[in-house]
Amino acid sequence: MALDPAGRLSLYRQLAEVLAGRIEDGTYGAGERIPSVRKLREQFGVSLTTVLEACRVLEDAGLIEARAQSGHYVRAGGPPRRPEPEESKPSGGAKRVDASLAVQLNLGIGNPQEPTLGAAVQGPELMAMGALNRLLGHVLRHQPAACHSYDAPPGSAVLRRSIAQRGGDAGYAVSADDIVITSGAKEAVYLSIKAVTRAGDTVAIESPAYYALLEVLSSLGLRALEISSHPRHGINLDDLAAALGSRQVAAVAMVSNFSNPTGSCMSDAAKRRLVELLEAHDVPLVEDDVYGELVYEGKRPTAVKAFDRRGLVLYCSSYSKTLSPGLRVGWAIPGRYQNEVELLKLVVNQATAVAPQLALAAFLDSGGCDRHIRRVRRMYGEQMASMIDAVERHFPDTTRLTRPAGGHVLWVQLPPGVDAMELYEEADGAGIRIAPGPMFSASHGYRDCIRLNTGFPWSATTERQMATLGRLVAERAL
Amino acid sequence: MALDPAGRLSLYRQLAEVLAGRIEDGTYGAGERIPSVRKLREQFGVSLTTVLEACRVLEDAGLIEARAQSGHYVRAGGPPRRPEPEESKPSGGAKRVDASLAVQLNLGIGNPQEPTLGAAVQGPELMAMGALNRLLGHVLRHQPAACHSYDAPPGSAVLRRSIAQRGGDAGYAVSADDIVITSGAKEAVYLSIKAVTRAGDTVAIESPAYYALLEVLSSLGLRALEISSHPRHGINLDDLAAALGSRQVAAVAMVSNFSNPTGSCMSDAAKRRLVELLEAHDVPLVEDDVYGELVYEGKRPTAVKAFDRRGLVLYCSSYSKTLSPGLRVGWAIPGRYQNEVELLKLVVNQATAVAPQLALAAFLDSGGCDRHIRRVRRMYGEQMASMIDAVERHFPDTTRLTRPAGGHVLWVQLPPGVDAMELYEEADGAGIRIAPGPMFSASHGYRDCIRLNTGFPWSATTERQMATLGRLVAERAL
Repeated sequence: MALDPAGRLSLYRQLAEVLAGRIEDGTYGAGERIPSVRKLREQFGVSLTTVLEACRVLEDAGLIEARAQSGHYVRAGGPPRRPEPEESKPSGGAKRVDASLAVQLNLGIGNPQEPTLGAAVQGPELMAMGALNRLLGHVLRHQPAACHSYDAPPGSAVLRRSIAQRGGDAGYAVSADDIVITSGAKEAVYLSIKAVTRAGDTVAIESPAYYALLEVLSSLGLRALEISSHPRHGINLDDLAAALGSRQVAAVAMVSNFSNPTGSCMSDAAKRRLVELLEAHDVPLVEDDVYGELVYEGKRPTAVKAFDRRGLVLYCSSYSKTLSPGLRVGWAIPGRYQNEVELLKLVVNQATAVAPQLALAAFLDSGGCDRHIRRVRRMYGEQMASMIDAVERHFPDTTRLTRPAGGHVLWVQLPPGVDAMELYEEADGAGIRIAPGPMFSASHGYRDCIRLNTGFPWSATTERQMATLGRLVAERAL
Repeated sequence: MALDPAGRLSLYRQLAEVLAGRIEDGTYGAGERIPSVRKLREQFGVSLTTVLEACRVLEDAGLIEARAQSGHYVRAGGPPRRPEPEESKPSGGAKRVDASLAVQLNLGIGNPQEPTLGAAVQGPELMAMGALNRLLGHVLRHQPAACHSYDAPPGSAVLRRSIAQRGGDAGYAVSADDIVITSGAKEAVYLSIKAVTRAGDTVAIESPAYYALLEVLSSLGLRALEISSHPRHGINLDDLAAALGSRQVAAVAMVSNFSNPTGSCMSDAAKRRLVELLEAHDVPLVEDDVYGELVYEGKRPTAVKAFDRRGLVLYCSSYSKTLSPGLRVGWAIPGRYQNEVELLKLVVNQATAVAPQLALAAFLDSGGCDRHIRRVRRMYGEQMASMIDAVERHFPDTTRLTRPAGGHVLWVQLPPGVDAMELYEEADGAGIRIAPGPMFSASHGYRDCIRLNTGFPWSATTERQMATLGRLVAERAL
């Protein structure tokens, strides 16, 4: 079945239609892998780009899904019943960040130790509490003087070695000397952004963006340039390229894998192109990869850091989503900004608590760590599936939602007529915490969106809250 | 014995001479308490100020020493063999802080877990390791979900309550709600200074000042105005008043009790006057009181915070010098800047590790805590006495040194001809770390001074290092 280069539709659209027909007629069955990109190129005599574009059309239509390092699979159950939100169109121009709304709502959604749809926190059932407690006891007993002395940047050598050894999972190769231990990924992001900017500078960010990033920009007197972003593919690189070309951007900051709030994940090709853009303009990237480990199936996605050859990427992460947030241990791999980040760590709080660093190192080196992470990936996947199912059951048909392949936040576009801030207030009155869209934008956009946390195992309480929330939405929908 | 208001000498000098005569003739014996301020006023019919000034002259001469809340005592052994350094005379004007030297030397003096004369660290023997380890095990076992969940500002309620209950020791009365938990006092100082300044502002500081404070000012783009300071009485309030009157000072920052590096401690009268000055000019003070607990004898000195009625004092402290620096737990009492400091804590790293907070709270509430603190105060006193003795034995007669009544740093003015930077380099070559004077000044002054750490129990190694250091000094002295 040949394609027609002179046809009305572009080649990649023609190819997409052919493949869609084969999915419809059962040639490629539900859950099966479609032919590889190489095979499709050969079969149809088209370029790599054409095949990739055709696959993206099918992905956008919900017919197939990409699995990292593995290929494209026909979606079980066919296309989802609800479409996903469209690519964002933030209002242009760099602007001073007024994070007061994000702060107020951040405090409003809280940080509880019980199941919540608001704060992006996780159930203790998903954390490695027992093993970490045993290892904490061990290091306190066997290295009491170390545990109760000052540490100094870049932090515990044994932990830095353990982290470096796991870098291959995310595709980057670094040594222990390239790592700076921080008190959580949040501190890594704060120190990294402070290291590469001065007050008044402009930082390009995804839109919507994680509200804590907006708080950092505001706190450091930085301006935000919101770049349009796709809820599955992430930041629009053409728009980012244009912004970088205007020479007004001092740094880029984003969550590369399973972004907060949309769950978007950049492809390897996009990550490679992003690094080329950074290099061409000599602009650093602060990459927050705190959700990369939380892929539901297959291999975890690559970090942008994996494509970084010139040290322009300041990579930030932690095990707060898989092992324990209460330990407050994260790290930065600051590339050419290593000295600056180490100095800032020294200035801000000298060092991170010692016993948590040593216990975490011991756990990372144990076989139990990989087993634990496999287990929680599965749990996070089930929790996300339950939440998507609940939205489809309880929310009006005109609701749109994302389909994250990892992480624990779901981005929901409400039906026309529903205002996220009003919904937030009314839900709060009913004892239900949610994160309204305007938290995630320097210009307080996304008044038609909310973020739902899926960090806890599904429960009767969650089901009840989702039913109530769905009723509140339906009452307001036009 | 009446004083002569028309005499050649001012009344307080006349009174000082009379009292000095009584000490010399044995009327007031070594180690005995001299009459109270009230009694002296009645006996001589003079004002409170006159008596206090006279006592200060006798203190300066080394004839008597003040003990907090108790009065003045005749020094055992008479006046010290070596005089103390004179009040500093920093070069005037606010200046941008170049902290690169402080940073370089800070890294140079290191942060080891073994005895050192360089970094201001403490021997693990002085820390409450065993008790804290038991309590850490307890909270991990009994509150695993809390220990492995996110905390949020202002931090653990039980710890804030325990800290508030101990505020009376330092003379301030606050509630748990007034406290923000931080990752060490250093973070409390960073957040507090950031909360009350903007880049380009001027901060008035003691001179010499703790080098980590210089690093914070540099990192936040602030200018330093160094104020002359006395090695025993602390910052010169007349000079500070003049600086505040010039309306160029956005904030004051200092170590109020047993300052680093001089060991100076402000009197209650000076603290009261300082607060009056702050109020008159509506300027905040960031008070670092991390050494106040380390008084060698008698009651611990009062915090400036105790005199604060308008919330202008941002008080910062920790138990890193008495219980454990490795836990990284400190706190701020930010007064009217409470919201700003809580927000900055949220932005910088969300929260402090949970288990250390809970274990520290449990220890503070136990009877063992006061016993432990009494024990380490005595040890710190013995260590300081040994260090002063070693300087007097090994260093040339023309050396001057402070006589701190608490803390664990000794400030030494070297004999004419000895350069602190050269001595630092040469000592480093001999495996001995010291902190050279220029670290403690924005203008890199104090090239004739060094700071010695007395945080470790006296040992044969320390004795050998001091002998070597004394020899190096003697070789260079004119």
